[in-house]
Amino acid sequence: MRRALRPLGVTAVAAALVLGAGAGWAVSSDLTAHGAAQRLDGDRTRAVRDELRGGHARNVILLVGDGMGDSEITIARSYQHGAAGRLPGIDALPLTGQYTTYALDRQDGRPDYVTDSAASGSAWATGTKTYNGAVSVALDGSSQRTLVEIARANGLRTGVVTTSELQDATPAVQLAHVTDRGCYAPSSTSAKCPGDALENGGRGSITEQIIGTRADVTLGGGAASFDERATAGPWAGRTLLQQAKDRGYQVVTDAAGLAGVRSASQKAPVLGLFAPGNLPTRWVGPPASPTGGAEAAVRCTANPAASPTRPTLAAMTTSALSLLQQRGGRAGFFLQVEGASIDKQDHAADPCGQIGETVDLDEAVQAALDFARKDGHTLVVVTADHAHSSQIVAAGATTPGLTRTLLTADEKPMTIAYGTAPAGRSQGHTGSQVRVAAYGPRAANVVGLTDQTDLFFTIRDALRLDPDAPALTSER
Amino acid sequence: MRRALRPLGVTAVAAALVLGAGAGWAVSSDLTAHGAAQRLDGDRTRAVRDELRGGHARNVILLVGDGMGDSEITIARSYQHGAAGRLPGIDALPLTGQYTTYALDRQDGRPDYVTDSAASGSAWATGTKTYNGAVSVALDGSSQRTLVEIARANGLRTGVVTTSELQDATPAVQLAHVTDRGCYAPSSTSAKCPGDALENGGRGSITEQIIGTRADVTLGGGAASFDERATAGPWAGRTLLQQAKDRGYQVVTDAAGLAGVRSASQKAPVLGLFAPGNLPTRWVGPPASPTGGAEAAVRCTANPAASPTRPTLAAMTTSALSLLQQRGGRAGFFLQVEGASIDKQDHAADPCGQIGETVDLDEAVQAALDFARKDGHTLVVVTADHAHSSQIVAAGATTPGLTRTLLTADEKPMTIAYGTAPAGRSQGHTGSQVRVAAYGPRAANVVGLTDQTDLFFTIRDALRLDPDAPALTSER
Repeated sequence: MRRALRPLGVTAVAAALVLGAGAGWAVSSDLTAHGAAQRLDGDRTRAVRDELRGGHARNVILLVGDGMGDSEITIARSYQHGAAGRLPGIDALPLTGQYTTYALDRQDGRPDYVTDSAASGSAWATGTKTYNGAVSVALDGSSQRTLVEIARANGLRTGVVTTSELQDATPAVQLAHVTDRGCYAPSSTSAKCPGDALENGGRGSITEQIIGTRADVTLGGGAASFDERATAGPWAGRTLLQQAKDRGYQVVTDAAGLAGVRSASQKAPVLGLFAPGNLPTRWVGPPASPTGGAEAAVRCTANPAASPTRPTLAAMTTSALSLLQQRGGRAGFFLQVEGASIDKQDHAADPCGQIGETVDLDEAVQAALDFARKDGHTLVVVTADHAHSSQIVAAGATTPGLTRTLLTADEKPMTIAYGTAPAGRSQGHTGSQVRVAAYGPRAANVVGLTDQTDLFFTIRDALRLDPDAPALTSER
Repeated sequence: MRRALRPLGVTAVAAALVLGAGAGWAVSSDLTAHGAAQRLDGDRTRAVRDELRGGHARNVILLVGDGMGDSEITIARSYQHGAAGRLPGIDALPLTGQYTTYALDRQDGRPDYVTDSAASGSAWATGTKTYNGAVSVALDGSSQRTLVEIARANGLRTGVVTTSELQDATPAVQLAHVTDRGCYAPSSTSAKCPGDALENGGRGSITEQIIGTRADVTLGGGAASFDERATAGPWAGRTLLQQAKDRGYQVVTDAAGLAGVRSASQKAPVLGLFAPGNLPTRWVGPPASPTGGAEAAVRCTANPAASPTRPTLAAMTTSALSLLQQRGGRAGFFLQVEGASIDKQDHAADPCGQIGETVDLDEAVQAALDFARKDGHTLVVVTADHAHSSQIVAAGATTPGLTRTLLTADEKPMTIAYGTAPAGRSQGHTGSQVRVAAYGPRAANVVGLTDQTDLFFTIRDALRLDPDAPALTSER
């Protein structure tokens, strides 16, 4: 056998950002030998049985890679850790399955095979399938109670963390109910969701509903929408940011501010607004292009806009866990964490952007698993809301769409193709079932084939939530 | 809620071919209601625990969908059973995970991120990663012992069943060792694998090695190669078909012939040659085209070339199980079953062809599960060798590649896109991890993230095979 792979260096950026964090290498030194590529050994029955814990969970952490299909996971693993490596967070979940993500056609209630993030998130947030664009409303427009709302009504603590605008679909589905996901702020709500607008007696824009839902911890981007002013009600004419402060929120805008927060409660919830829009990606690199696959293989580099004053997703997750765990942790909590820009960079046919965000989510998963292993009463679920465009094709290939060849941790070329839209247009979601993985009490519920709506019931029942518990008032 | 989906009729062909077989419907009558799309209920811990059986298996049935990634599974389910339905075989396996499929670069032994069927099959057949094109030889060309060879040397009965030519990569990896998968018969072996050619002292072509390996049951296509003549050795100048007969094989060429076989043994193994090349696909339909996604949604129809005199994959599987189970079943067996043309139709951007073959494999999985549930000592594994091109995109969309819109069991349009090669060229394999699912003793070994080489060790150890058991002579 010839000598093969050794733990070679990856990019300077990867080494600095990720390997320095102790991700380590699982790459075999010689993959050519009999058995050299094995990931397990012996009879796994006892090991899997030991991971099967029924009963109930005190806490649930749901981590969502937006657009993180099996292809996106494989791409990130191979780039960052080598094909034989492991993502230390995402690949560490012991129980695994697949779930369906289809949405419903608004007109006839039958399947729409490609979901958007709003319908998909609404499905696990509420247990109700809905149409693309819907934020936790059913096909008939009726509001569907969310896991955050139900958990809060049951006296649990709650948190929502994302790398996108807080008004974006995945965080919004836990915190708001609007008929169109674009209704971020009063102006867009008046235009797109007039029935939801405050001036028409509605529940208000997504931003106003986020303030009203009052999760204990709400962290992400989307500060720009908070600069708009309410159109009606007690805060008419004042900015939504001022309203949040008036209603007791502790507002922080950078990593130092977040680190300085000592507690989060219904009296003083924490609102982190770390960017006007979406948070910058961790990595950058040349996007795919019509000829990119045949060009020299490239490395990804750090995004200069990813300022250290902005917390990473793992840092936001760790802060949220610390804040939600206070009061002895007896109350229990539900926390949703989203790596939002895997999807956005897949739309942009930007493999480095996409991979960096997957690695960013993987760090958050590691933080969640560290917490859960110590705590012993926490269910961790890692999944995606839908599959996406990116595919690994033959090294150096070009396709009718866009391609880019990267130089991986294996020091080998890997070509990523995007073929669902022409150059210059947004690549599209795809309809494949996606991976769902879990650790902790009731993790068995992800094994086999499920639907994303099952996740609502799994989490609700793991936490022993009464779905009809009366709502708290939104006021302190 | 408005009225939605009812169990509507699918195509005449689907109704005749599949629904008539009792596949049934799992589609909810109203997917719009809270909880209507759920696939499970309550705490699954006990149910999953009940499926965890350690110890050893008497028999193993490995069913491979060539190119059957998660996207291909989702496409077939949605077309044939609706998005909320279930594939009655493939979706019934209780334990599930994902595995990596990468091959190795022949030059440097490092990962090649997109495998072909030869390297992929060699990996699970032998536990050794190898280069694309290799048939159960390592990177250095050394022969790697296969599960069929090891099982046979341990006194188990063995079978290989496929819808492709028997010389094609996936069946060949269990039965032969050549440095290039194209070495089907003496002429191609002299040209492409001279070191393997009989006249050069080699092991002979794949066809000659199939005869020599002498599985108890070998069923598929590929009769054409058997018409060539041996170039050296005791059968020089005689056709390979005559050689097989001279060496005791019972040769059958149609469903009636197979049905008439009463036993299979080392004295009189069964060789089924049901087509000159690959078996015809079950279904046909318009292939994807540059404008196909925007054209009217179509149904798939029966392939007129799929003659009832040719057995389906399920019929071949049922026959193989019956023949391998004889002698009281005490010997135990290893059977590999391949749905080969999921891959071939994906290459051809032919969604109906691809779906029909997935449904065909699903019927074989049902037959395997029926056997295993009754037997109680059989491990069933269902997986793929690699992911492929087809993706579900927004209904009615076109892309830079090829698309086709189908009318599904939900009576809704589903658009399938192929974007890895231009029109008229073969669509390419992709590098995503794929689903692996299992039932029976040691099924736990597929849970979580594994590599395809793990499957070799899982099957070897489940069957308690001594990998160094001395080979039987090939002669009766």
